[in-house]
Amino acid sequence: MSTQSVDPRTGIAFGPVIPDTTSTQLREFCDDAAQAAQPWGDLLREERARMLRAVADALDAAGGDLIPLADSESALGLPRLTGELARTTFQIRTFADALDDGSYLGVIIDPADSRPVPVGHPDLRRMLVPLGPVAVYGASNFPFAFSVAGGDTASALAAGCPVVVKAHPAHPQLSDAVLECMRDALAAAGAPSGVISIVHGFIAGAELIVDPAIRAGAFTGSGRGGHALFTLAAGRTDPIPFYGELGSVNPVFVTSSAATRDNLAAEYLDSLLLGGGQFCSNPSVLVVPSDSGLLASIVEQVSARPDAVLLHEGVAHLFAATSTQLASIHGVRLAAGALGPAGTAGFTQSPLIFAVAAADVITDPSLLSIECFGPAGVVIEYASTDEAMAVARLVPGCLAATIHSDDTDPLAASLLPVLARRAGRVIWNGWPTGVAVTSAQQHGGPHPATTNSLHTSVGTTAMRRFLRPVAYQSFPQALLPTELRTTE
Amino acid sequence: MSTQSVDPRTGIAFGPVIPDTTSTQLREFCDDAAQAAQPWGDLLREERARMLRAVADALDAAGGDLIPLADSESALGLPRLTGELARTTFQIRTFADALDDGSYLGVIIDPADSRPVPVGHPDLRRMLVPLGPVAVYGASNFPFAFSVAGGDTASALAAGCPVVVKAHPAHPQLSDAVLECMRDALAAAGAPSGVISIVHGFIAGAELIVDPAIRAGAFTGSGRGGHALFTLAAGRTDPIPFYGELGSVNPVFVTSSAATRDNLAAEYLDSLLLGGGQFCSNPSVLVVPSDSGLLASIVEQVSARPDAVLLHEGVAHLFAATSTQLASIHGVRLAAGALGPAGTAGFTQSPLIFAVAAADVITDPSLLSIECFGPAGVVIEYASTDEAMAVARLVPGCLAATIHSDDTDPLAASLLPVLARRAGRVIWNGWPTGVAVTSAQQHGGPHPATTNSLHTSVGTTAMRRFLRPVAYQSFPQALLPTELRTTE
Repeated sequence: MSTQSVDPRTGIAFGPVIPDTTSTQLREFCDDAAQAAQPWGDLLREERARMLRAVADALDAAGGDLIPLADSESALGLPRLTGELARTTFQIRTFADALDDGSYLGVIIDPADSRPVPVGHPDLRRMLVPLGPVAVYGASNFPFAFSVAGGDTASALAAGCPVVVKAHPAHPQLSDAVLECMRDALAAAGAPSGVISIVHGFIAGAELIVDPAIRAGAFTGSGRGGHALFTLAAGRTDPIPFYGELGSVNPVFVTSSAATRDNLAAEYLDSLLLGGGQFCSNPSVLVVPSDSGLLASIVEQVSARPDAVLLHEGVAHLFAATSTQLASIHGVRLAAGALGPAGTAGFTQSPLIFAVAAADVITDPSLLSIECFGPAGVVIEYASTDEAMAVARLVPGCLAATIHSDDTDPLAASLLPVLARRAGRVIWNGWPTGVAVTSAQQHGGPHPATTNSLHTSVGTTAMRRFLRPVAYQSFPQALLPTELRTTE
Repeated sequence: MSTQSVDPRTGIAFGPVIPDTTSTQLREFCDDAAQAAQPWGDLLREERARMLRAVADALDAAGGDLIPLADSESALGLPRLTGELARTTFQIRTFADALDDGSYLGVIIDPADSRPVPVGHPDLRRMLVPLGPVAVYGASNFPFAFSVAGGDTASALAAGCPVVVKAHPAHPQLSDAVLECMRDALAAAGAPSGVISIVHGFIAGAELIVDPAIRAGAFTGSGRGGHALFTLAAGRTDPIPFYGELGSVNPVFVTSSAATRDNLAAEYLDSLLLGGGQFCSNPSVLVVPSDSGLLASIVEQVSARPDAVLLHEGVAHLFAATSTQLASIHGVRLAAGALGPAGTAGFTQSPLIFAVAAADVITDPSLLSIECFGPAGVVIEYASTDEAMAVARLVPGCLAATIHSDDTDPLAASLLPVLARRAGRVIWNGWPTGVAVTSAQQHGGPHPATTNSLHTSVGTTAMRRFLRPVAYQSFPQALLPTELRTTE
């Protein structure tokens, strides 16, 4: 088995045929990662930070080669990919800053208390330590930011864990080029070898998550793939944590106080169609007052929007299947666009807008669980605030949920706690696409949006996924890790 | 099916026959817990703290009834159980203090930054919110501290999650009595009904972890039981986190600089035989210099130690099986005690000391993975520091690992990083039993000691197991949760 790049604009394969990684090669990479775990994890934090910044610098310097290559394999366009690479290197530098800061270690120091138990206790000092090698599964929709050099890799490396990346088959050449760039930069900066490597092929991806050296897995992609890998990770003799970011419909609720705002329809379409609608935070469901005229505005404006080129054949097939499935749900009608591909070459798709009455969704809420990955939105029209609330209560776990409203609208105050219980991130008068890399970010909500809602894949706390606490009891200062020492 | 108490001192059943919880009853309890999730989770923190303190007060007040009942079902003795109840209510009050403090919420506030992306970002504020109802599986060896009112329940309730407890069949009457006491105290304090309930029976325990209302599970007990429940939790259509604390051999390494200390043998036996050796943090493996005479001292002193009464028939059977297994390993000899029960009535067992040369352990390290739950220790004698290091590198994931040494002994400095990579807690010149309840505590190490090493079951950070982050993006202050508001 092997992988070859395909131009999404033409559907034609090009470039080298990349053979699948063999089981023997995979074991070597994982053994190398295991060997690197101690030297990499034991590095001074400022040393790891320096090496991460060297990686970011190298990727920025290679942008002139990497960005056109990414475009040839993803059709995402040079402006978007230029921004995405900038985001990716910013993210790596943000983790380097977090290393310098050190608060991610979660240090807690409880000095000895000589009172009788249970109140009294010995000196206890706790900090987080790296888990060991991490398997990272690249996503196709962010060939930089959620792939080889993306947030999962950056957070694992920052946490002190070597990484073995499973390349996404939609951008195999870019994956190898990014890996080579990172590996060269790490080597030049003095990092131990084996800190990062890459595997290709479906079988290698499955073997990776059950390799004995691997201590955690991180994945961004489809629910089906994520669940399969989660099951493998949990089924190991020694189960390991698996962080699958699987996507959701990310509903946007518009109250009557906001429904007449200028540009709401245009802003919705901007967010819905960004990157061909291929964002996991895509706002694919919009819930609006039935008398707002928003549906009509959206239908009118979408006709002027360009067709999207989908990332790869798999996305095109899945889009065809899920859009057909949506159209078959009782009460759902296709309000704009036509089912089926928009052209004969490549993976082109015109935007689709579905419409449905809230009453029908309340009867059959299945569409709230169908992520139609690509340029498709569902507008749900509600006739009363009770209907809007009923729809909100039917929303399954999602990455993000949004409210557009005036501050004092009582429906907004009622919606917020219901949505916050179902989402990883709630948004006010904004749009869910464009997940900022900050320390307060949370990307990841309850199942089925993720396989693990306790942690995030974006933002500096993403490192916490690859760390575990260790408590040091009654140790002399000289034997403690530097971060646990106190001057007395 | 049903459960009845058995006196471990006689092996004779007594007291009421408690029927197993039916599937219908279990679903009702779980539905009640789901109904209670929002009102309990939405309570002001100081209100939940007040209710937890009311529970602690009620348990303390009921000690005169509860402690003798616990002794009749566990044979752990009144002094130990008096201390354990005090520890349990102290623990509940410690979580109440953590609620008052509020830092467990992990609030992070990133004010808006108007620079261009990726540096600029909207206002983002993150805090932790409760997961929902938690299934807690009581352990037999701590009928108070790791059972109905134990750390798992206290941390889940404190986090804002209702609890359904699976009672341990070895103390069914105590379980019901503790639950009734807690429920009455919660009701009197104004808590919503359904915040805590209890189920009995093996089948109910399995049904509980797959009930759709349950959002997480916490378990302290055997590897076999824990893995079975972990598999059920991971196999759900919506997988949930499962925190199994499964135990380990908790090795203690003695360097030559410490081997001649007075009382080391006596202290070891005190820790090894505490509670009949039925602690998950029991130091069942002691690694000593072969020329230290420590083995001889231990063998000499153990003969004066009393027999232990094991907790229940299951522990007695498992002890017989694992001690026989240990004795059959190449190079292992029984240095003190005799295999088989110590008497004809009840579950009495005399202490056993096994001895083995480090060289044999290096050839066959299987004993490092055999937790002989009860009054049995294995003394490993090493002939060189190289042998001691080789044994350390063979230690599997464990809850605790201990070093007895002078501060400047080079072997100690070499052992520490190796053991810290394998343990949840490392201890200096102390003993692993008696896990203090503090904020820096970590109880839980890498697999196979637990099914999830990222969190702890003891100490205030145990609440983190039942919380997930939510980010609020661009919300007006008035709509934010109180903890996320800033005065401007």
